[in-house]
Amino acid sequence: MKALVYHGPGEKSWEDVPDPQLQTPTDAIVQVETTTICGTDLHILKGDVPTVEQGRILGHEGVGTITELGSAVQGLEVGDRVIISCISPCGACAYCHQSLPSHCLAAEGAEGVGWILGHLIDGTQAESVRIPFADSSLHKLPDGIGDEAAIMLSDILPTGFEIGVRNGGVKPGDVVAVVGAGPVGLSAIMTSSLYGASRVIGIDLDDNRLEFARKFGATDTVNSGDDDWFKQVIAMTDGLGVDVAIEAVGIPKTFDMCAELIRPGGAVANAGVHGTSVELKLQDLWIKDVKITTGLVSATTTPMLLKLVAQGKLEPALFVTHRFKLDEMMDAYDTFGRAAETKAMKVAISR
Amino acid sequence: MKALVYHGPGEKSWEDVPDPQLQTPTDAIVQVETTTICGTDLHILKGDVPTVEQGRILGHEGVGTITELGSAVQGLEVGDRVIISCISPCGACAYCHQSLPSHCLAAEGAEGVGWILGHLIDGTQAESVRIPFADSSLHKLPDGIGDEAAIMLSDILPTGFEIGVRNGGVKPGDVVAVVGAGPVGLSAIMTSSLYGASRVIGIDLDDNRLEFARKFGATDTVNSGDDDWFKQVIAMTDGLGVDVAIEAVGIPKTFDMCAELIRPGGAVANAGVHGTSVELKLQDLWIKDVKITTGLVSATTTPMLLKLVAQGKLEPALFVTHRFKLDEMMDAYDTFGRAAETKAMKVAISR
Amino acid sequence: MKALVYHGPGEKSWEDVPDPQLQTPTDAIVQVETTTICGTDLHILKGDVPTVEQGRILGHEGVGTITELGSAVQGLEVGDRVIISCISPCGACAYCHQSLPSHCLAAEGAEGVGWILGHLIDGTQAESVRIPFADSSLHKLPDGIGDEAAIMLSDILPTGFEIGVRNGGVKPGDVVAVVGAGPVGLSAIMTSSLYGASRVIGIDLDDNRLEFARKFGATDTVNSGDDDWFKQVIAMTDGLGVDVAIEAVGIPKTFDMCAELIRPGGAVANAGVHGTSVELKLQDLWIKDVKITTGLVSATTTPMLLKLVAQGKLEPALFVTHRFKLDEMMDAYDTFGRAAETKAMKVAISR
Amino acid sequence: MKALVYHGPGEKSWEDVPDPQLQTPTDAIVQVETTTICGTDLHILKGDVPTVEQGRILGHEGVGTITELGSAVQGLEVGDRVIISCISPCGACAYCHQSLPSHCLAAEGAEGVGWILGHLIDGTQAESVRIPFADSSLHKLPDGIGDEAAIMLSDILPTGFEIGVRNGGVKPGDVVAVVGAGPVGLSAIMTSSLYGASRVIGIDLDDNRLEFARKFGATDTVNSGDDDWFKQVIAMTDGLGVDVAIEAVGIPKTFDMCAELIRPGGAVANAGVHGTSVELKLQDLWIKDVKITTGLVSATTTPMLLKLVAQGKLEPALFVTHRFKLDEMMDAYDTFGRAAETKAMKVAISR
Repeated sequence: MKALVYHGPGEKSWEDVPDPQLQTPTDAIVQVETTTICGTDLHILKGDVPTVEQGRILGHEGVGTITELGSAVQGLEVGDRVIISCISPCGACAYCHQSLPSHCLAAEGAEGVGWILGHLIDGTQAESVRIPFADSSLHKLPDGIGDEAAIMLSDILPTGFEIGVRNGGVKPGDVVAVVGAGPVGLSAIMTSSLYGASRVIGIDLDDNRLEFARKFGATDTVNSGDDDWFKQVIAMTDGLGVDVAIEAVGIPKTFDMCAELIRPGGAVANAGVHGTSVELKLQDLWIKDVKITTGLVSATTTPMLLKLVAQGKLEPALFVTHRFKLDEMMDAYDTFGRAAETKAMKVAISR
Repeated sequence: MKALVYHGPGEKSWEDVPDPQLQTPTDAIVQVETTTICGTDLHILKGDVPTVEQGRILGHEGVGTITELGSAVQGLEVGDRVIISCISPCGACAYCHQSLPSHCLAAEGAEGVGWILGHLIDGTQAESVRIPFADSSLHKLPDGIGDEAAIMLSDILPTGFEIGVRNGGVKPGDVVAVVGAGPVGLSAIMTSSLYGASRVIGIDLDDNRLEFARKFGATDTVNSGDDDWFKQVIAMTDGLGVDVAIEAVGIPKTFDMCAELIRPGGAVANAGVHGTSVELKLQDLWIKDVKITTGLVSATTTPMLLKLVAQGKLEPALFVTHRFKLDEMMDAYDTFGRAAETKAMKVAISR
Repeated sequence: MKALVYHGPGEKSWEDVPDPQLQTPTDAIVQVETTTICGTDLHILKGDVPTVEQGRILGHEGVGTITELGSAVQGLEVGDRVIISCISPCGACAYCHQSLPSHCLAAEGAEGVGWILGHLIDGTQAESVRIPFADSSLHKLPDGIGDEAAIMLSDILPTGFEIGVRNGGVKPGDVVAVVGAGPVGLSAIMTSSLYGASRVIGIDLDDNRLEFARKFGATDTVNSGDDDWFKQVIAMTDGLGVDVAIEAVGIPKTFDMCAELIRPGGAVANAGVHGTSVELKLQDLWIKDVKITTGLVSATTTPMLLKLVAQGKLEPALFVTHRFKLDEMMDAYDTFGRAAETKAMKVAISR
Repeated sequence: MKALVYHGPGEKSWEDVPDPQLQTPTDAIVQVETTTICGTDLHILKGDVPTVEQGRILGHEGVGTITELGSAVQGLEVGDRVIISCISPCGACAYCHQSLPSHCLAAEGAEGVGWILGHLIDGTQAESVRIPFADSSLHKLPDGIGDEAAIMLSDILPTGFEIGVRNGGVKPGDVVAVVGAGPVGLSAIMTSSLYGASRVIGIDLDDNRLEFARKFGATDTVNSGDDDWFKQVIAMTDGLGVDVAIEAVGIPKTFDMCAELIRPGGAVANAGVHGTSVELKLQDLWIKDVKITTGLVSATTTPMLLKLVAQGKLEPALFVTHRFKLDEMMDAYDTFGRAAETKAMKVAISR
């Protein structure tokens, strides 16, 4: 089959590789119908994720059809149309039992990370993929949900919801600021409604992304390039600050912005992937009764989000700005890699 | 009457001052039977808390007897023996309603801090004190609880419990590390049992304080001066780190120690008062699903802790290492100010 | 002034009474602009609430303007336009401190119920009313919110939200059944969205009320007069039952319906006022991991709901089906008392 | 091998049966070192549990050594000494994912109950037993924990903790009443300390059991045969009732006792197995803001309880009053079946 293979920093190709094979009784083989590219894939290509070895097939998001099942898989059948979760949980370790499979201890060679697809084992940017712990890693799709909505449930929508909205403890009536209106930020914006936020403020430097923010449910937007951006946001509160600030960029400046925006009793939910330390101003914060959280998605909310998509309460297909065929994978990377120019949010890459 | 008056950085005296008077219908006047000195009082004397004006009577902890009541006070009577809370909550603002009176908005001149006693209004290191919002700020003492136990419920025991144990989310079976075995740290150690911690590890540089830690319920202690202190602590876990680390010192190094000790999914509860920024290693922590909290005590748990003291489940009188009379106030400060030498933990200063 | 006075079972009149006077420093006098009638008022008139004495002015819902303030009131001013809460919390007792002022211990003569207005003291169906604990019992109204929306925040909307939705623990993705589409049931339907319910099923015998249910946000409705009503509801779930069933009628049959509809791990939130026992089938339920809750509104969520109304996220003015002037009070009672015929949901009675 | 086989109501024998065999790749075979008898086994023998077929080997509690493993088992090895959980969770279904495997949907033929051992498949009162979903159903035992402590973690201790203490929401300072001081009630008494109860009141008709209650940590006991038992309990509170009442008998009278003992805002946690309906006095309870819970143990807390046993914080071996060898199984049943006479609490039946 064909797959997108990583060959070291800056090197990738869409090439012939052997078909995936069942390895343990809990595996499934899934024919990929639609996959996509994540910001994390770009990080890997830059060489930022040294645990990814050369020769690895990338991709941890996908929708497809089961073609083969290991003998211990119980709840699935060949022919089932499924969402592939970006997390592959064993379901039996201490972290799986505390609903935190992002730190699954049993995943093959994972050293305490439940994200192994396109990382420690071959991934979904391929015509077919082996999925370990299939009973926990695959979610059957009901009829009537398109691939472009479904694939957002592999990673991006649960990330914004779990690591942004839920970790931040958004509750009815809250004013929520989301710093960064890329895919993770937009996911947080869209799902803030699930806990009844009264205002959701999208903050970004790019007006195109702020337009996306409004489309995804932001009640207000602020361009952080404005000199008075801070005053603008505070004016949308009772003057004391926002209840929850969600960091969805991953640099010190945006983390600082969040820490400054929150009111006493508020929370910063960090969803960005950071490469350096940040300065935490404990001299100001020690007295403020704040909470700061971090996290990798566990994707335990994928089935719940799927119910809301089925009911038309969430419309994640809105993320898709560009569409490609599987064998246009290299073009898809090019377009997604130049997102500022191409205005790409998420690309759908389909059979 | 006599009181301990602050006269600017480094200057204080035990001197004659006018008796306190009722100012609003919700006030009470309390004759002080026992008071104590807090680390915060030492900070004020160093000039670290600029909101404290010269001429202020210090002290925010006290046990005494009500001598006068405003006309709107409902649940108290003259002659009641009471604990004076370090927080004076109006009971009606948004923060009081969300059980966070540490940020009470209505307190006189407080600009969003519920701690006003010995800070923005005259305090308890005096023969008598005016207490605002008496219905919420005073707690009737049942018979049989001595002053030395009771006064620890003004501030220190609820601080360790609320800001350490409860903010950290300690739950049954957890391994808890407490960095710093001074009064706040010991309070956290003593109250970790209230959520069923399996191990409580006291960590300090001072062996005398580690002995206190064991007396207060630490199952284990580690001297952080040991080269392998980190290994010693990790060996007391399953190898992944502690569930909750409580910071009870207030310097960057001890915050770092906490951040390094926690396991994926763990929490750092900061209870120390910090004067500078700390470096938060988000490049490591972003993926670890951790929670960091800060806070000023709200003292909403004082009545609950009082029930446990009454049942003999907690013994806060253990804190008292030195005893003075009110007119030995200056000696009491001297002893408490040289705690490393005098081995003072808390001093009881009584009528 | 004029007021609606209870003169024993079946007897009431709109008559001259003395103007209300401040009694304690925490009181306020409010000129009533709009009031309404609650199902509870009808119960009182039937003689079902023996704690209500003859001569009592009824009514516990209102919007008005402050005309006089006691000397201890801090956060309000004469001339403020306010919502009058149906609960009058002291803000200082154990129940107020645990955010459960429905059982406020300090309220005048209340014997452990925070609902005293139009019950143990004179109420809001009058030209003016004395409100105790004004700082906690009155909520300032921002500009731009009409009386008809605001008055629903005195009691009915927080009741449906607190006792139905929040007690039931509705969470994102849940399927919620609301049995009874009267004012409380509709409040629960409208506010189920605040916790992201995927489906909200309105159930009633009256097709007119089912139409209301849809207008208030029910995704589905079922007429419980249908022979197969149970099957219809279960077919809207995955076959195991609903996550939360909210009882909003107050008779054994509707409680039974709720208990039968819930799935293992589900909850029945009872919001109806019951006059007799119900049979709880513990022989079936003991193994099902269910939760059953009851409650009287605490109205602690009124300020939060107000924020959502101000943002246009909730539209409680939709409740009002009939409008009257204050001196048409007797007609208003007549119309509301024959709701089945008049199709009255809530009546607005305004100056 | 030998096993205790059910042959219909009233009929059982210790007889030769075929050795268990691996059936699926996720199974394990465990040689039983110690087993015990549960009240549920007596119910089965009376014919009260019709889903148990004739020929079934009984028993759902056990400690033993793994002798054989299916090819998909990851975290265990032959020779491991393990606790056998009474619940066999698949780890992949919706209920397992919400940490409620007591309603596991995938368990073989279980129709929505995760308890299948000695119920729908052969159990642990045998020399050897097949355990499905071994990774989730078996817990490795650290050295130094005896069989008699360990076997209480199969079912009885997690039942008292999860269904009594945790469902009841016991929190620091609470007054807890436990009605019924048999094994489940004693488990609740012992584990109430894990959430910091201030008083734990054991209530029973049998003075011998009340003595057990005190040994297990009850601060107070009341004999419910006393005319004034109710007054005695209320006198141990502030006069308003207990915070949490745990029902650990399973008859209408004891449920009523619990419902009457709780204060406004309190909870009844039903842990008893009921055969008939109870009368729920909603005419009194609708206004009281109470919570009533039911449940079958999920045993998700077994690993956590094990940590506390390993630290000496819980001593479940105290339950064992009588000891037998496996081939004295019939005597063990006789002794346990006449518990009132023999004063048996739990029997340990060992190889």
